[in-house]
Amino acid sequence: MNHSMIRYVLGAVLCFESLFLLLPMIIGFVCGEQSAVSFLICAVACMVLGGLMVIRKPKRTDFYATEGFVSVAVCWIAMSLFGALPFFISREIPRFEDAMFEAISGFTTTGASILNDVEALSKCCLFWRSFTHWIGGMGVLVFVLAVFPLRGGNVMFLMKAESPGPSVEKLVPRVKNTAMILYGVYTVLTVTEMVLLMIAGMKPFDAVNLSLATAGTGGFGILNSSAGAYASSQQWIITVFMILFGVNFNIYYLLLVKRFKDIWHSEELKTYFGIILASGLLIAYNIRHIFPDPLEALKHSFFQVGSIITTTGFSTTDFNQWPAFSCAILVALMFCGACAGSTGGGMKVSRIIIMVKTAVKEIFTLKHPHGVKTIKIDGRVVEHETIRSVNVFVVIYFLLYAGSLLLISLDNFDFTTNFTAIAATINNIGPGLNMVGPAGNFSQFSVFSKVVLSFDMLAGRLELLPMIVLFSPLVWSKHR
Amino acid sequence: MNHSMIRYVLGAVLCFESLFLLLPMIIGFVCGEQSAVSFLICAVACMVLGGLMVIRKPKRTDFYATEGFVSVAVCWIAMSLFGALPFFISREIPRFEDAMFEAISGFTTTGASILNDVEALSKCCLFWRSFTHWIGGMGVLVFVLAVFPLRGGNVMFLMKAESPGPSVEKLVPRVKNTAMILYGVYTVLTVTEMVLLMIAGMKPFDAVNLSLATAGTGGFGILNSSAGAYASSQQWIITVFMILFGVNFNIYYLLLVKRFKDIWHSEELKTYFGIILASGLLIAYNIRHIFPDPLEALKHSFFQVGSIITTTGFSTTDFNQWPAFSCAILVALMFCGACAGSTGGGMKVSRIIIMVKTAVKEIFTLKHPHGVKTIKIDGRVVEHETIRSVNVFVVIYFLLYAGSLLLISLDNFDFTTNFTAIAATINNIGPGLNMVGPAGNFSQFSVFSKVVLSFDMLAGRLELLPMIVLFSPLVWSKHR
Repeated sequence: MNHSMIRYVLGAVLCFESLFLLLPMIIGFVCGEQSAVSFLICAVACMVLGGLMVIRKPKRTDFYATEGFVSVAVCWIAMSLFGALPFFISREIPRFEDAMFEAISGFTTTGASILNDVEALSKCCLFWRSFTHWIGGMGVLVFVLAVFPLRGGNVMFLMKAESPGPSVEKLVPRVKNTAMILYGVYTVLTVTEMVLLMIAGMKPFDAVNLSLATAGTGGFGILNSSAGAYASSQQWIITVFMILFGVNFNIYYLLLVKRFKDIWHSEELKTYFGIILASGLLIAYNIRHIFPDPLEALKHSFFQVGSIITTTGFSTTDFNQWPAFSCAILVALMFCGACAGSTGGGMKVSRIIIMVKTAVKEIFTLKHPHGVKTIKIDGRVVEHETIRSVNVFVVIYFLLYAGSLLLISLDNFDFTTNFTAIAATINNIGPGLNMVGPAGNFSQFSVFSKVVLSFDMLAGRLELLPMIVLFSPLVWSKHR
Repeated sequence: MNHSMIRYVLGAVLCFESLFLLLPMIIGFVCGEQSAVSFLICAVACMVLGGLMVIRKPKRTDFYATEGFVSVAVCWIAMSLFGALPFFISREIPRFEDAMFEAISGFTTTGASILNDVEALSKCCLFWRSFTHWIGGMGVLVFVLAVFPLRGGNVMFLMKAESPGPSVEKLVPRVKNTAMILYGVYTVLTVTEMVLLMIAGMKPFDAVNLSLATAGTGGFGILNSSAGAYASSQQWIITVFMILFGVNFNIYYLLLVKRFKDIWHSEELKTYFGIILASGLLIAYNIRHIFPDPLEALKHSFFQVGSIITTTGFSTTDFNQWPAFSCAILVALMFCGACAGSTGGGMKVSRIIIMVKTAVKEIFTLKHPHGVKTIKIDGRVVEHETIRSVNVFVVIYFLLYAGSLLLISLDNFDFTTNFTAIAATINNIGPGLNMVGPAGNFSQFSVFSKVVLSFDMLAGRLELLPMIVLFSPLVWSKHR
């Protein structure tokens, strides 16, 4: 294990976080809020600690998969720790485990909250919550790589460990340039949403916060009603942008370089839109009696579908009250998730496609035991290693899910609450059903359960392996 | 597709079913029950139809995996159809879909019932319900093979398609002898339980029915209270035998031939007992406040753990009322299931072991990317094909589960009911939680949901592929 390299990456991340913390601080000072001081303290602490860690260049530059996973896991935990401190120091979230939960929920773009009254928070804290979504959505290490290129070693391992989806492609030969393109698209889309929301009449502070949270597919709202209090036109804008941020960012790159044919052939994209359309229409039909007119039903249906499949987690209404069929579709979408290479969480549409194709192939092989059938996506053969990694992902996902469910059941809440609380955190969504439904929150869980759910949020955001590797004795033992 | 061979196998199965139907008929006539006539009618119909199908020998004897899967699926559906007719003709279960549900639940050893009042059934119907468990537990085709050896072709495909678990081994070189040994052990164990229950003071009719249902890990009781009304000693006997029938039958063969060392090295056996012990103690501790003394808590805990992990589904108490942690353990055990090669359902302990080892191997590989690590069970390397088939099993299981959950949600019951109804049927357990808990039943589901759940019971019992293959256009299309 190359410890000096991990230390160096962590230092770089903390330096960046220190800069990020200045933004809410400025907002706080402008609004004359006391909490701004706590952001200043944390920014300084972060900078000093990060600075000390990057002063010495790493001795060796070799960098492999284990280092990639461990760095990413350590960086995310450290980031969350420093992200939680302002909430805690300012006493706006008086319990440390709650502050930590909120920060992890922010960075992992989950949007699950322990706050009973979001509106009681200061503006700087509200902004910081939304901003953590934006930072966490694209990934901090990708950002660090864009500005702070690491020489030597295979830094692709860092990007692979942090990026969502079964396979990571470099858009352009250099990692740095790929990262720049991704962040560029991300920023342009975010600003477009802000502008459109303001044109639609939303207050600037609301528009900025909601856009940041939409871009990261996070889901922290700044009102207790989440997105329920906004005008219909604003809700439709949010719906569209949630869905856009669930698209693989490679698609936007292809759009920029005018490779429309490649976009048209993207199976993941077509499946993603197909699922959204089918789910939206089915739910709208299922809930038509709840709302006065069909357009209203369609609006709520597509908002919730877009919110859940992209794992954003905003809500315009308490879907926990919807018929069981609609709830079941939403729960299924929680597992499905958005496209690989987007800011969304969940299993990812491409994994679902590979799973379905694996099942079809199996049945086909029964009839033609000697026929060789490969799995193709977008006309290209999917490598055996990718299929294997998807299978392993499903297995680990299943085991982690079962383990977490057992542990949080100790709190003695009902099964639906427990089951969807895990679904909502491991898939980085936010709200589940029953007690953790859109009208509820995670405040009633015990400290122990909050730790378990925080672990699941991090594991889900980092696609399971980094967090498990970090806590695995197999990796840390010197021998074997 | 070798249709003549499938026709021949189906005919043989129907002939046997006709003989099986004579047993409840005799009981009915002895007790002077009118329903006995309906068993006679069905037995005759079965014999005539089956006889017509076996008169002509199959033209070709080639027999491969697809034929194996299709025969098994077709045979099980036909068996359930003729098994349901006596309930329907006698008007004891007046609706056909309910009779079919009950018969499928019987043969698949699920034990999920649509009856609100079991005690209202005639003795011959009660016996038939228990007897279907016993027949379905070991598998009909295995029985047919034992008595009716098919020449030519690879009949192992039949046994593979019907037997539970990721890999089927022949104990002795000839399939026929293997089947004989299995049925021998099965019969001896069943009779032992009957005798012990009678010694413990149970009425003979109850002892026979409970033993048949325990042996098949079915779970149909003959009292509305399931096993709750029996004496503690009788409940302990049932607990022990449920657990024994969840053991891989190869272990009993090894016991017979005195290969104790092989038994000692069986990882699946050790894991199975380990899970039972851990779950039993944890639940007993969790429910200690509900019962007056610790022994009572232990009795109920181990009964329910044995009942659920072996997928039998008897209950001594309404565990739906237990704390969430105990319920979560039971739900986890539903998925775990018993040992491969036992009469129990679920995913099987050996698959769980392979899944855990796959996950551990993945983490190990990260540290040693060039090291080759194989997965071993009982000191032997698990073939790549077995690991792949476990992964594919998990993927198909997951997809089928999600699809079924969506479909039965149309009935608009709560999520816990829907989720555990699928768990209870696909894993062949019987009771779930909430509405389908030990105190409830499946009668309130719509006809459509009953069909979905019936499909899941069959798919679960036959380890997914046969039922999916039967309804797959990929297999039936002439081209491709």
